[in-house]
Amino acid sequence: MTVYNFAAGPATLPDPVIKQIQAELPSLQGTGMSVLEISHRSAMFDDIINTAEQDIRDLMHVPANYHILFFQGGGTGQFAAAPLNLATQHKRIALLDSGHWASRAGDEAANLGVTVDTIASTKDKHYQELPHLDKPLSAEDYDYLHVTTNNTIEGTAYHTLPEHGDVTLVGDLSSNFMAENYNVQDFGLIFGGVQKNLGPAGVTITIVRDDLVKPVEHIPSILNYALFVKKNSMFNTPPVFAIYATGLVLKWLKQQGGLAEIEEVNRKKAALLYDFLDDSKLFTNYIKKSDRSLTNVPFTTDNPDLDTQVIQAAADSGLMNLKGHRSVGGLRASLYNAMPVKGVQALVDFLHNFETQH
Amino acid sequence: MTVYNFAAGPATLPDPVIKQIQAELPSLQGTGMSVLEISHRSAMFDDIINTAEQDIRDLMHVPANYHILFFQGGGTGQFAAAPLNLATQHKRIALLDSGHWASRAGDEAANLGVTVDTIASTKDKHYQELPHLDKPLSAEDYDYLHVTTNNTIEGTAYHTLPEHGDVTLVGDLSSNFMAENYNVQDFGLIFGGVQKNLGPAGVTITIVRDDLVKPVEHIPSILNYALFVKKNSMFNTPPVFAIYATGLVLKWLKQQGGLAEIEEVNRKKAALLYDFLDDSKLFTNYIKKSDRSLTNVPFTTDNPDLDTQVIQAAADSGLMNLKGHRSVGGLRASLYNAMPVKGVQALVDFLHNFETQH
Repeated sequence: MTVYNFAAGPATLPDPVIKQIQAELPSLQGTGMSVLEISHRSAMFDDIINTAEQDIRDLMHVPANYHILFFQGGGTGQFAAAPLNLATQHKRIALLDSGHWASRAGDEAANLGVTVDTIASTKDKHYQELPHLDKPLSAEDYDYLHVTTNNTIEGTAYHTLPEHGDVTLVGDLSSNFMAENYNVQDFGLIFGGVQKNLGPAGVTITIVRDDLVKPVEHIPSILNYALFVKKNSMFNTPPVFAIYATGLVLKWLKQQGGLAEIEEVNRKKAALLYDFLDDSKLFTNYIKKSDRSLTNVPFTTDNPDLDTQVIQAAADSGLMNLKGHRSVGGLRASLYNAMPVKGVQALVDFLHNFETQH
Repeated sequence: MTVYNFAAGPATLPDPVIKQIQAELPSLQGTGMSVLEISHRSAMFDDIINTAEQDIRDLMHVPANYHILFFQGGGTGQFAAAPLNLATQHKRIALLDSGHWASRAGDEAANLGVTVDTIASTKDKHYQELPHLDKPLSAEDYDYLHVTTNNTIEGTAYHTLPEHGDVTLVGDLSSNFMAENYNVQDFGLIFGGVQKNLGPAGVTITIVRDDLVKPVEHIPSILNYALFVKKNSMFNTPPVFAIYATGLVLKWLKQQGGLAEIEEVNRKKAALLYDFLDDSKLFTNYIKKSDRSLTNVPFTTDNPDLDTQVIQAAADSGLMNLKGHRSVGGLRASLYNAMPVKGVQALVDFLHNFETQH
């Protein structure tokens, strides 16, 4: 049985990448050593990390005045790192409260002593549409504005970045990182764990504009941007395997033609599912159409028992991990980069059959 | 050619573990999903992390009043986490300066606003022996005493823990974690990255006594012990693969008979090399005999050019990564858990031949 994994992350990876990892696991490049055993101070790993960096630069057209860094600790680590490194002048940031993870980012910054102004929120609308600013913000007032480009749990995404004035934009791109094409220059800082679109859990990519990287004292070294810039992300032992595997996914993304092509495929995948849902009498996606995510699609029959039945029947057919987040309920299909069109087609076919037989 | 990897970390892993990872990479437990793709909220991963925890508990005889936690960020992350979580009463810690990494731990704590008293240091002896306390320390004065049980760069180890009074002992066990058998109850906190004796880089094991885990505010969540205790190390996405692979190494350690048996093998391996070095006219290990590490053995010909020649010739014979740390020079052989006796024998044979032909 072909299995399709719709998990929200860690998530499905491209088959050729899994095969390559498997093939070279016992001996990387004929060295007789596994990638799990090589030193991060070896020429081989230097090549791995530098190639990964260059491939990110190529794929996202990252300008030369931006650094590309590899951290541990996930998006949650960067929820701390961003305010610790960047919120040093006003010690005040602005937040667009677009969902659970935006809110968590705000909580983390506040917990670290930064004032967090929630400028707009759609919490009262169950986050089924995106918040926007009433008026532009000034860099005179805020160290930055935090925006979550894609809301994994709620299923919304900013396809056009919100108008925000001259304030620095910090983007948590975790769940549509390189699945949707953004202009890096619109951001001062971008970050995201790789475990949705780009690799296995264990490494976080941070892209930061050079003028924002300043020596900061009294913060943990493992979250220190200036230190990681200086040490090429190797202040201490990096997560070698996760960086290697991410590098293979980046090569695969290049083989797909680059981000414009990948976004095109992702639009096609999302449209396949949204079109079905909009036609369906049984299943509904409640997200405002212009705000719908390409990568995370929540839907429901509005009957929790029936939802559970669908999730179970889908799993029996090899369509895995369709349970929605507990805060939303229902079902959720995550359609990240490595989910093939035929996986989405299989899901739509299954849902159609379920509805017909229901 | 059989390759033996003497790197100081990331380091060699047991062959059966590499083989098992390779075999089940495309489909873990017949699910059709790779371990690189499974959700950390799945029953399968619950079983992986809980089994790893239990195996650590069994191997180290960890009492019930100690928590076992999995972090990202390596020992360097814990250099911050330890003072942030534990140095909350006196905001003062004591340090035994036994080498580079002890010193780095002290720097990190100081950078985070904790007063660090270096109680004893052997820096003036080039760290070729271990520092000890002149008099016991009191918990009335210090939140804890930081000790590095094994000094990776310098090649020393506390085979008996230093007498330290009633102050809480914090042990950085990174480079002899489960390679040498310590009594967990002698410590309030133990931590170490797994990438030397226990797995691939990317996860850090922390063992902490329950009474030391207190809610602490204003620290990054990814370093918060109380939060990780509450969330069973899954406050955010954990490094799934690194925990899985470490779990396989733990099973392998159990198959070797447990820590007493492993330490016995490690003593045998170390003795093989030290005995050769002590007999050699060409190679010398300068460490005080009673303080010699079981896992990291630095040695030299006292001629940098000749050292380089030995390192190159060894590599040509499949004996890899013997270059000493730049701060010490010479050669260093790391003999972690997964290094087989025959690997050490091959090294000794090579060095013997080199000396004879020299």
